[in-house]
Amino acid sequence: MFNHPTDVPILVLTEEQSWQLLSSAELGRLVLIVGGRPDIFPVNIAADGRSLIFRTAPGTKLAELSVNEQVLVEADDFSSEEGWSVVVRGTAERLETSQEIAHAESLGLHSWVPTLKDFYVRVTPTEVSGRHFLFGPQRERELGEGSDSA
Amino acid sequence: MFNHPTDVPILVLTEEQSWQLLSSAELGRLVLIVGGRPDIFPVNIAADGRSLIFRTAPGTKLAELSVNEQVLVEADDFSSEEGWSVVVRGTAERLETSQEIAHAESLGLHSWVPTLKDFYVRVTPTEVSGRHFLFGPQRERELGEGSDSA
Repeated sequence: MFNHPTDVPILVLTEEQSWQLLSSAELGRLVLIVGGRPDIFPVNIAADGRSLIFRTAPGTKLAELSVNEQVLVEADDFSSEEGWSVVVRGTAERLETSQEIAHAESLGLHSWVPTLKDFYVRVTPTEVSGRHFLFGPQRERELGEGSDSA
Repeated sequence: MFNHPTDVPILVLTEEQSWQLLSSAELGRLVLIVGGRPDIFPVNIAADGRSLIFRTAPGTKLAELSVNEQVLVEADDFSSEEGWSVVVRGTAERLETSQEIAHAESLGLHSWVPTLKDFYVRVTPTEVSGRHFLFGPQRERELGEGSDSA
């Protein structure tokens, strides 16, 4: 799926490729600023067109997301041979209308905390960046010269 | 390994339990503030006592980490039945002495970018928090009443 030029272990993905990977991802990590410092939470995600939806429960920090909150969502997957990571930077807003919520429910997202009062959040991207990594034999090469790092 | 009280799907882990999980983790995500906004990068990690080490290459944003930079490192693992996530909040500093570097090399960390000029960074925690998640039958229960979420 990803053709790296020779000797290019890290491939910068197109937005299209990044969304292909996001479509297959079920787990992501939400990064947001809480009280002036970054925080990170695992979330179940679903791609919905060119946005991401996740579900959360009241009483959590996620529930304090205000409208148009700036967030990051990262998803990745790695094996010993290859890996990818996609980062969506965007704004988060809670879904409020019954139409929006019905649509979000149709995506089959699971909640982390079983509660009847879960709600859905949509992350609308302002920037999507992805990388694909190839771990060839070069990955096994070790330094052997620590003095380089001083 | 993790005994949840009945009907408690999310268990707050002790620091000891969190480090047990970190010791088994090879992949983490580093969160740092770059130019006033959060950024996130996958990194290979190794636990070294009660700190974490990762390796990175010059010319990356990670290479711009200053001494005592405030960072987060998150590691997680999930199956359909259970999962965990541990977040280390701490300060990052580049390893400079040949002794430190030789010790870091002994941890067997792989680099993302093959280069002879990789360097090592140690994250010394100020706070470690972990959660273990049990996804029982309740995870399958769906809402059925979207109007709750408005």
